[in-house]
Amino acid sequence: MRMRKVKWATDYLPTASCLVKEPSKQAGNWKKLLDTDTLHIEIGCGKGNYSLDMAKMYPDTGFIAIEKNESAAGIAAKKYDEDTEKKRLKLIQDDASSIGEWFGPREVDVIHLNFSDPWPKKRYAKRRLSSATFLDQYKRILSFNGEIQMKTDNSALFEYSLIEFQNAGFKMVEISVDYRREKHDEDAITEYEQKFISLGQPIYRCVWRYAHD
Amino acid sequence: MRMRKVKWATDYLPTASCLVKEPSKQAGNWKKLLDTDTLHIEIGCGKGNYSLDMAKMYPDTGFIAIEKNESAAGIAAKKYDEDTEKKRLKLIQDDASSIGEWFGPREVDVIHLNFSDPWPKKRYAKRRLSSATFLDQYKRILSFNGEIQMKTDNSALFEYSLIEFQNAGFKMVEISVDYRREKHDEDAITEYEQKFISLGQPIYRCVWRYAHD
Repeated sequence: MRMRKVKWATDYLPTASCLVKEPSKQAGNWKKLLDTDTLHIEIGCGKGNYSLDMAKMYPDTGFIAIEKNESAAGIAAKKYDEDTEKKRLKLIQDDASSIGEWFGPREVDVIHLNFSDPWPKKRYAKRRLSSATFLDQYKRILSFNGEIQMKTDNSALFEYSLIEFQNAGFKMVEISVDYRREKHDEDAITEYEQKFISLGQPIYRCVWRYAHD
Repeated sequence: MRMRKVKWATDYLPTASCLVKEPSKQAGNWKKLLDTDTLHIEIGCGKGNYSLDMAKMYPDTGFIAIEKNESAAGIAAKKYDEDTEKKRLKLIQDDASSIGEWFGPREVDVIHLNFSDPWPKKRYAKRRLSSATFLDQYKRILSFNGEIQMKTDNSALFEYSLIEFQNAGFKMVEISVDYRREKHDEDAITEYEQKFISLGQPIYRCVWRYAHD
């Protein structure tokens, strides 16, 4: 997500109580920190609604929302801090390229990739969150039979991801080329997703599992 | 494809020169029969345009069009017989459930599944051309690294097929959730496909390979 700098948000961010400033120091400790048996992370949470809604829907599950854009992260942080419901939700503001260092081996049960930047130019393919270097890190931090759940409106990114995950040894367990054709009350709707639903555009979704050897 | 009986077509069919009446007698002999190094088959050719167009586009390649409906097969047969261009094209009129007996081991290079009947009810799932018993037969008759190319407008059939092919050990090598987003002059357009393109509906396509152990 590209967005203009939002001063109040970037000012607020460093003061946010949901913010974890040195995530690598929590590697292996996240479930304890959030007092949970199940840890989900969302890479690229934007303004943060998805993880917030999911944390409310699943109060026993821990959620870590990750966003590199400071303004978006600041907006998410304020929402997370102001929401008074009991929830297990933290925020990391950083580039996910070293995500493998932030979590211990097999610490994460579900990784959510929602409407990630498609980086359509081939020379930027390595920045896609479904490119091989990311997938290698996901394998390391995913629990046994841990899941990756991806939603996108971008057909080219979806197609690319299906091939990349397969070639990295992930197993597709659910796929939909028109996810909102049916109701999915168990899954929150992101800001982007609501926009595409309103426009009548299909949402593509896939769930993969990785079974460690 | 469901269609009414077309008398002239069912009358014509048994007299057609393109018709191979006892396909299992040709098992292992098809490439010789068609004087070709490369053999494609289309399962469910309907009124036959796709295989005819492909046979004209690729005159060195042999094509076997298969259709169980007698009226559709008769219409296809007449087209194939009347077309005077040099082409390598034969027709089988039968249910493909015993297709593994019609071709020798590793005899077929490409299998085309175009707009197959989705059999949406779960109790008829076994009739889908991408169900496990068909996939087992495809593996037997496909050449080393042979391909299966599927096109459909039906999202549920497409999703089902992606999981079934994966679970049967096929490797996805190309996928598109909006195939006609780009031009594909190398591939003929079927009658159904043209209709869905006109309606602005997406065409789903996948190509799988099977590498024998």
